[in-house]
Amino acid sequence: MLAVEQKKKKYLNLSYLIRPKSIALVGASANKSKIGGIMWSYLQSFPGKKYPVNIKQEAIDGAKTYSSLTDIPEEVDLAIIAIPAKNILSVIDDCIKKNVKAAIIISSGFSETGEQGRKLEDEIRNKISNTDLVVLGPNTLGVYVPSVNLDSMFVVREKSKRPSSGPIAYISQSGASAVGFMDMAECHHYGISAFIGLGNKLDVNENDMLELFFNEKDTKVICMHLESIVDGHRLLKLCKKITPFKPIIILKAGRTEAGAKAAMLHTGSMAKTSQVIDGAFKQVGVIKANDMLELFDYSRILAYQKPMFGPRVAVVTSGGGYGVIATDYIEDSSVGGGLKMAELSAHSKLKLREKLPSFASVDNPIDLTGNVTDEMFDYAFKVVNEDENVDGVLAFPLIQTPLTTDKLIDITEWWFKNGKKPMVPCIIGGSYSEEVIRKLEALEVPVFPDIRRAVLSLRVLYERGKYLMKVKKKGKFKFRKVSELL
Amino acid sequence: MLAVEQKKKKYLNLSYLIRPKSIALVGASANKSKIGGIMWSYLQSFPGKKYPVNIKQEAIDGAKTYSSLTDIPEEVDLAIIAIPAKNILSVIDDCIKKNVKAAIIISSGFSETGEQGRKLEDEIRNKISNTDLVVLGPNTLGVYVPSVNLDSMFVVREKSKRPSSGPIAYISQSGASAVGFMDMAECHHYGISAFIGLGNKLDVNENDMLELFFNEKDTKVICMHLESIVDGHRLLKLCKKITPFKPIIILKAGRTEAGAKAAMLHTGSMAKTSQVIDGAFKQVGVIKANDMLELFDYSRILAYQKPMFGPRVAVVTSGGGYGVIATDYIEDSSVGGGLKMAELSAHSKLKLREKLPSFASVDNPIDLTGNVTDEMFDYAFKVVNEDENVDGVLAFPLIQTPLTTDKLIDITEWWFKNGKKPMVPCIIGGSYSEEVIRKLEALEVPVFPDIRRAVLSLRVLYERGKYLMKVKKKGKFKFRKVSELL
Repeated sequence: MLAVEQKKKKYLNLSYLIRPKSIALVGASANKSKIGGIMWSYLQSFPGKKYPVNIKQEAIDGAKTYSSLTDIPEEVDLAIIAIPAKNILSVIDDCIKKNVKAAIIISSGFSETGEQGRKLEDEIRNKISNTDLVVLGPNTLGVYVPSVNLDSMFVVREKSKRPSSGPIAYISQSGASAVGFMDMAECHHYGISAFIGLGNKLDVNENDMLELFFNEKDTKVICMHLESIVDGHRLLKLCKKITPFKPIIILKAGRTEAGAKAAMLHTGSMAKTSQVIDGAFKQVGVIKANDMLELFDYSRILAYQKPMFGPRVAVVTSGGGYGVIATDYIEDSSVGGGLKMAELSAHSKLKLREKLPSFASVDNPIDLTGNVTDEMFDYAFKVVNEDENVDGVLAFPLIQTPLTTDKLIDITEWWFKNGKKPMVPCIIGGSYSEEVIRKLEALEVPVFPDIRRAVLSLRVLYERGKYLMKVKKKGKFKFRKVSELL
Repeated sequence: MLAVEQKKKKYLNLSYLIRPKSIALVGASANKSKIGGIMWSYLQSFPGKKYPVNIKQEAIDGAKTYSSLTDIPEEVDLAIIAIPAKNILSVIDDCIKKNVKAAIIISSGFSETGEQGRKLEDEIRNKISNTDLVVLGPNTLGVYVPSVNLDSMFVVREKSKRPSSGPIAYISQSGASAVGFMDMAECHHYGISAFIGLGNKLDVNENDMLELFFNEKDTKVICMHLESIVDGHRLLKLCKKITPFKPIIILKAGRTEAGAKAAMLHTGSMAKTSQVIDGAFKQVGVIKANDMLELFDYSRILAYQKPMFGPRVAVVTSGGGYGVIATDYIEDSSVGGGLKMAELSAHSKLKLREKLPSFASVDNPIDLTGNVTDEMFDYAFKVVNEDENVDGVLAFPLIQTPLTTDKLIDITEWWFKNGKKPMVPCIIGGSYSEEVIRKLEALEVPVFPDIRRAVLSLRVLYERGKYLMKVKKKGKFKFRKVSELL
């Protein structure tokens, strides 16, 4: 096979990681308290063909069990491997013999544990180097694709829920934090198109994932939690191609020297210095996240809200105190990053004055006061959306006040989705507020329980808007499939 | 009455705001949907004497109603006033005639609405200037003191829960954000000794509150959300006296020029520039908060955890990815503020190696991996607590992993409360994790659902430790009552 042909075939095989027709689980077990047992039971919801492989050929829940991959009479698209590291090599041989398209090595005990594990990875890499088999991992949770009911994760669902289907591709080099992330995602109705755990990146890496999800039409936003970068040059080239069409958010952990050392201990890979990466990312339109919560917030606001094409924010609140803190964050460049408070037009102020109580503030931040009604919120949202001096809206639709009702949920949803200007809602409080937040999130309206997080998310919408205007000016909106760039 | 004598009497009368024996509600109503009706019903849980005052002398739930304060035959310690601003002056006259100790003006329509309101405040100030009546407000939610069942707040409890009794005094110049804050506090078992809404600060201000809560023995920590500072010189003097004994955390909103303008619109008072305030606060040991969530986090960690007397943090996690992000934040001075990763002693590493799996990392961050058990967490906490190279611990006691159980809650509680080194727990996830967090919080163990917030809280423990060492060196630990300083 020619090198270029093999490359293209390998590229095509990536899609079998998330859309296989048939799966074999090597290391499947009848024991539900073992990893191979948990995984086999979760794979039952996958509608395609499933083959348990087990060297002892124990019967598993009545399914015919195979002692090796090569014993399976039909085609296997995806082999998921969960057996001790020392036994992996022969399974890889079997994958190649069997012409398996993609393999996921769940097992740990590789480069993250030292020299011997690194050697084992090298051997696998050698074995697959002249083939089109793609290998994800090792040392990974694998994949989770809600739209096709594919779940290779061995963490039990009672303790760690799975998010529903949605527009965000989530790629992570860290397993435990991916568990926390997806559990949080489920809780907030944050929908994902797929989760991919990169693990030690023996073969498949972040660049392959960018290629894959650029062409996946269900994916609107790509977010990645990385601890190392395999090929920075290619990463930047890919991001440059993709970001005009799909936002990319990257958490690159290991920013500090000590953090980079910790990352090396964790996944066995060395991080680059932070400043170089930050600057390069910015140039190619990548949104930077500093932690998982930022990755979470930025990806969901970019998935569900339009970009902001100017820096001027109108704040609509019924609590003056929130307005003051929001103003501070918006105008503080270390948080707002260039956002500023909009100067409302005289016309807007007049219109607000007409319908609001005399003690309400019609200057920005607009303070509707504790006497606010649902209708006043609706009216204020209308006025700021029509004001040409306003580029985006920070809203505090608080339902604690005596005269507001659950109708405010619908009003907030309507303006979030239909307003001319992007709007970010912020609701602060306890269990009652959390119920309101969950209701809005179920309507695909992300809500922020923290003023700083809300302002940072507005900033990200503005960064996205600025970037889109920049690439538009340069005429870079010509769509080319990533496969054409190979 | 001599000026100094009046000042001392006024100082003593402050305590009637939170510990009255008898209360009159001016503006009490039989209508439960009106502010005066909500307030009257919530005052019923107060065990002392309660008198409804209503100009129309309507009967309220069978209680004898008075047409004015002066008609009440017995003594009134605290008058709570909830009638339109224009009718307030004669009630203040009545307070003085009746020798009421303290009054709370709930009503709005004063300086926050402009010139006319400002004049009204001046008139009240004139009336009380030669008396010992203390006046809280106007434009305030009033007070909430759970230990004596005093609740003057008109926000309905269904929408906005009240926190339980605890060690933190919470003083706020902003009403709506106080509602959000206390609702959040209830949800997280954050206990308060008292809430005081300062409102427009016509008479009682933040300095009076510092004096009051310095001497209140139930109060271990004082936190304040301010939009203006009445007398900076006196504030700093008081803080200097108090901070060696009780931590003070201040959120001074209106940090930026635009924020200061917004604060002026909100409470009618002008803010000072941020840098001057920050520097002065630091000198007198005040912990600065940038928003309500920081105020919340810093006050609860200072209330429930010991200070940290050095910068060296050990991170104990079962998720390597969390450890890397935590390391980044600890070493990034804009977040960690001088914290650094501890270099574990060779002895500690040996001890960890003895009992942990071969693939666990015994370097800091200590990564117990997904195979972690409850006992491994316990053991790792023991080792870092005994290590002389460690000053504080950031713990990720994650229960999602297969082999950990609810016992980890008790282990975390034990080390939080009994460890030699201060420990801050961080748990990230969805609804299951939130349950675990609530259980720990009910045991008075604050938990942070966000790595950045956890590191910021460790930083605050370190700032507190540094300050205490500084004042100790200067021999400033001589206790003097604030009243002696008057």
